[in-house]
Amino acid sequence: MRILTEQGPKEYRAVWMQGEKVVMIEQRLIPERFLLVEFSLVQEVAMAIKNMTVRGAPAIGAAAAYGMALAAINGEDLASSAELLKAQRPTAYDLFFAVDHMLERLSMGEEPVKAANDYADSIVDRCRRIGEQGEKLILDGAKVMTHCNAGALATVDYGTALAPLRVAWRSGRRFFVYVSETRPRLQGMKLTAYELRNEGIPHSIIVDGASGHFMRQGVDLVIVGADRIAANGDFANKVGTFEKAVLAKELGVPFYVAAPISTFDFALESGRGIVIENRGEEEVTHLDGRRIAPEGSPALNPSFDITPSKYVRGFITEMGVLSPKDIGKIKGARM
Amino acid sequence: MRILTEQGPKEYRAVWMQGEKVVMIEQRLIPERFLLVEFSLVQEVAMAIKNMTVRGAPAIGAAAAYGMALAAINGEDLASSAELLKAQRPTAYDLFFAVDHMLERLSMGEEPVKAANDYADSIVDRCRRIGEQGEKLILDGAKVMTHCNAGALATVDYGTALAPLRVAWRSGRRFFVYVSETRPRLQGMKLTAYELRNEGIPHSIIVDGASGHFMRQGVDLVIVGADRIAANGDFANKVGTFEKAVLAKELGVPFYVAAPISTFDFALESGRGIVIENRGEEEVTHLDGRRIAPEGSPALNPSFDITPSKYVRGFITEMGVLSPKDIGKIKGARM
Repeated sequence: MRILTEQGPKEYRAVWMQGEKVVMIEQRLIPERFLLVEFSLVQEVAMAIKNMTVRGAPAIGAAAAYGMALAAINGEDLASSAELLKAQRPTAYDLFFAVDHMLERLSMGEEPVKAANDYADSIVDRCRRIGEQGEKLILDGAKVMTHCNAGALATVDYGTALAPLRVAWRSGRRFFVYVSETRPRLQGMKLTAYELRNEGIPHSIIVDGASGHFMRQGVDLVIVGADRIAANGDFANKVGTFEKAVLAKELGVPFYVAAPISTFDFALESGRGIVIENRGEEEVTHLDGRRIAPEGSPALNPSFDITPSKYVRGFITEMGVLSPKDIGKIKGARM
Repeated sequence: MRILTEQGPKEYRAVWMQGEKVVMIEQRLIPERFLLVEFSLVQEVAMAIKNMTVRGAPAIGAAAAYGMALAAINGEDLASSAELLKAQRPTAYDLFFAVDHMLERLSMGEEPVKAANDYADSIVDRCRRIGEQGEKLILDGAKVMTHCNAGALATVDYGTALAPLRVAWRSGRRFFVYVSETRPRLQGMKLTAYELRNEGIPHSIIVDGASGHFMRQGVDLVIVGADRIAANGDFANKVGTFEKAVLAKELGVPFYVAAPISTFDFALESGRGIVIENRGEEEVTHLDGRRIAPEGSPALNPSFDITPSKYVRGFITEMGVLSPKDIGKIKGARM
């Protein structure tokens, strides 16, 4: 992804490997600071997944693949390293997919860093192809709405929801993006707006509650990422997604989900089986460590919600734009 | 309203008159600090309305009535004082209603402070009756959702949306309230949670985007206030209200609007004529004066949205619970 640094634009990935160290963009500091952090231990990578130094389902998957590479390099027990990584966040399927993929490759005697790099490269390539598959949906003059960050930061590079926007933009189409800020952690405001600004795409941040207001004024397309997609097309994504899907249906706005094969959990019949991560209430009640809610008022903080497949016009995948009914067609695809 | 002070609970109104001064709760500091501010000039009251020291349509109306009383006491030109007050916030109908009411009373030679007190007392009494009219909707064990603050702080006392909850609670019914935080200014988290905690009503704060998630898990009733209600039942309320109304319809949850006669703009045929206030983008992009959005990323900040009447199960008024079709029945009612 292109990051505007003080020295001008530079190209970065959200996570990569340098020698025997995993390097990540510290996403919790963006946009205030752009900082790279490096880790030598799978335990550190696990913590970085937990505390959201790296976030976004495909990027979490890549980070976990690199974490497994570190475990192999350091001679750690692979089964327990796999369990450790999987225990950090329950919803994103890519985490489980990537760790199992690495266990398989390592058991075949593959070189750890190469196996992890192959995984991350494959994700990047798939996101690039998601962009190519989806770009035709972004018409000149369109008003597009997205939620949370399903950009390069969330996916190593290109993004899922943002990939079609990048391809359309680079091919000369001009459009506008409503970025819903995405409380409590504000990944829309802090990360998606940052990526769009770096790409030069016109956009405005809105509060999550204003999505309906602007959709009613005229939005041509809603496009979001996903954390886990069940076999029937029900999917989990950042809390607030379900609301946008219902509003889109009510107002006749096409609603698309962009995701690579690594996010599809074909073993899961429907969204009922998806575990929703509940994070600490202080993400809601505190800002910069300071309590802003009244003392004695608790908060509930589900990190994701489930959107039934009936609200989805199409899944933009690296293998084409699929209706919920056609998800089965990509079941056999592998990394 | 009952405020828990360090000395124990005390009773307050959101705005009142003491001698020839208007006294208000400084609502922007709640819950961190409880501070009273006083004003001697209509210009100061106008500023307090603009900067949201006092907010909530009925409370804005009462503050404006007191502002007109100050203008009369100080021998200011009443017509231009009325214009000044009306120019501060375009959406809340109570502001216009209260100022016109005061112009009429003052032109009849009424004593200014008495006229303003009568207006505020009438609002308090109407909110108390809204509570009595609506309390039967709050069943024992219910899960209720509200948005923004339509409590005592918004209405001088009792509240609109919160009034039925208070009456039900005080009559022994037990229930739970989801408080959506209401970005950008967080009146749900900061004011509604504060009022519910002071009243002892169990509640949890949620981010606005989680409303759909929790409604899908089971909410029995959504109840909100209003800033302006057109003759056909379309209404303006804090941005995010329209989303909850659409979700409620989709998920079969009854959706109620609580408001006194002063919020009904019978001259307005439909919601199309309601002016939506757009406030400064820094309400979204900044926190405590510090920019949190990327440099170069603008924000759009509509303060309200319009909900068409078809989403409303009923309007809880001081004269009963009315369907949108029956709004005309209260048209002739006066303060």
